[in-house]
Amino acid sequence: MPEHALFEFLDLAGIFVFAISGAAAARERDLDLFGIVALAFVTACGGGIVRDLCLGALPPVGLADWRYLACATLGALATLGAYGWVRRLRYPVLLFDAVGMAMFAVAGTQKALGLGRNAETAVLLGMMTAVGGGILRDMLLSRVAVVLEREIYASAALLGSLLVVLGDHFHWGPAGTTWPGLVACFGLRYLSLRYGWNMPRFGRREMGPGN
Amino acid sequence: MPEHALFEFLDLAGIFVFAISGAAAARERDLDLFGIVALAFVTACGGGIVRDLCLGALPPVGLADWRYLACATLGALATLGAYGWVRRLRYPVLLFDAVGMAMFAVAGTQKALGLGRNAETAVLLGMMTAVGGGILRDMLLSRVAVVLEREIYASAALLGSLLVVLGDHFHWGPAGTTWPGLVACFGLRYLSLRYGWNMPRFGRREMGPGN
Amino acid sequence: MPEHALFEFLDLAGIFVFAISGAAAARERDLDLFGIVALAFVTACGGGIVRDLCLGALPPVGLADWRYLACATLGALATLGAYGWVRRLRYPVLLFDAVGMAMFAVAGTQKALGLGRNAETAVLLGMMTAVGGGILRDMLLSRVAVVLEREIYASAALLGSLLVVLGDHFHWGPAGTTWPGLVACFGLRYLSLRYGWNMPRFGRREMGPGN
Repeated sequence: MPEHALFEFLDLAGIFVFAISGAAAARERDLDLFGIVALAFVTACGGGIVRDLCLGALPPVGLADWRYLACATLGALATLGAYGWVRRLRYPVLLFDAVGMAMFAVAGTQKALGLGRNAETAVLLGMMTAVGGGILRDMLLSRVAVVLEREIYASAALLGSLLVVLGDHFHWGPAGTTWPGLVACFGLRYLSLRYGWNMPRFGRREMGPGN
Repeated sequence: MPEHALFEFLDLAGIFVFAISGAAAARERDLDLFGIVALAFVTACGGGIVRDLCLGALPPVGLADWRYLACATLGALATLGAYGWVRRLRYPVLLFDAVGMAMFAVAGTQKALGLGRNAETAVLLGMMTAVGGGILRDMLLSRVAVVLEREIYASAALLGSLLVVLGDHFHWGPAGTTWPGLVACFGLRYLSLRYGWNMPRFGRREMGPGN
Repeated sequence: MPEHALFEFLDLAGIFVFAISGAAAARERDLDLFGIVALAFVTACGGGIVRDLCLGALPPVGLADWRYLACATLGALATLGAYGWVRRLRYPVLLFDAVGMAMFAVAGTQKALGLGRNAETAVLLGMMTAVGGGILRDMLLSRVAVVLEREIYASAALLGSLLVVLGDHFHWGPAGTTWPGLVACFGLRYLSLRYGWNMPRFGRREMGPGN
């Protein structure tokens, strides 16, 4: 089935691109070769592993399927072998990261629904699939999680997950529970990158009296 | 049953107050709106989610029960809408946090015992329920966990969990496995706040020769 | 069976030594008594607990078996009572840590294989058993994980796990799936300590054009 093959390709391409972001961050922090591959793997597969733990879908597919480890390792080696390219091609990498993130959010939500979880669990675990790896990466590197600090990233994953749950609730069929979520999640992330949209922040700005 | 309703109210009130502490910490670190709600949710529900993972009680109730997410989101929005009040009412917030912590320690221990775990697992997971969310909050914010650094907090949770296990061992009945733990845990935390009690520390002080 | 008793002794000795490293790191960061014992426990048992979560082997043995908690607490108290000794005996502690690490890597891999997991899962979880506790320790202390940053540590665990899987694949029997992994893992770690071997790093060095 061509659509299934397309998704499998996009899924593994997402792993590859997430691994690049993990390996690049690890290299900047001067981790050694092992640490760089480990960070790439955690960034790429960590969100899915935590999702599978919460679903009781054991062993987590990120641990048991050799293609995930292979794609993550390839992403790490590509980052090391062509670090200059990775930095210069930052915008394409960001775009592909957005595709991977949309894939992960939709696939994670669908997996939770397929195992009979309720809508809330599915939305939360869909988001976890999309952003969990990046959060683990930042925790391992001892820095505040980027996806919680700025940019519309987790919010785009939330939108995608919500549309999957909506499609499932109204029986829109396989395509209806996939494409709207994918397109909306990627579209929102793309637009926020293109136009510099951000979520509101409150921290440093002083608010009026009474607040 | 009125006692059951009281506990449900206290449980959700605990979620609300834990969420305030997570949202306030996230706002201080200048996270965006999404990050603030996420930190509130993790602080409030993270300990219970890890407990449920260790118990195999899937899906974790913090993910599947919409009231937890709703109370955590309400806590985050309340923190943003009335940040000045939250800072001015620091002492009442601390008191309610102590009530929530006692509730979580007792309920977590009871859940583990009810699922047939042994005493040690129940005590460790009771403590995890009470302090796990705060530890995850501090890990996400890239700072050393406050509950491990100072103040009698986790120790109070330990006392509460131990009393629940003791009551269970000697068949003190539902009330006997609940109230002594609740009162002792809250009481110890309250007294330590009131009188500035701390656990001993060793780090910076130089010790005598031979040590 | 004497070999079994030997392994049980080495396992608990590994817990003890891992706990020393956790307690010493916690004391340096000025955590309080509870935090020091908690860090010792997490460092010693955290890797095994995460492994058991990923295996669905619940409750995790690190939570349910009192001897693990007892050995970790003893390690923490020994660190506090004889902190000067712990610092002076740094090299013996490192050696015993290498023994414990080799034990954990081999035992974790064997446990995963024994529960019917595939080779990749077994290798990843064997490594997780060996290095997971140290990584959790560093995450709790808000610092970049030492085992990912420098030294041949996780790589030695990887070698040990691979040899166990190899021995299992070629039916080398109980001794053949234990001793080669143990000896190679400990040996590589010992040699890297002895001769200052490190994994390659890339971060701060500038690479030529095109990279």
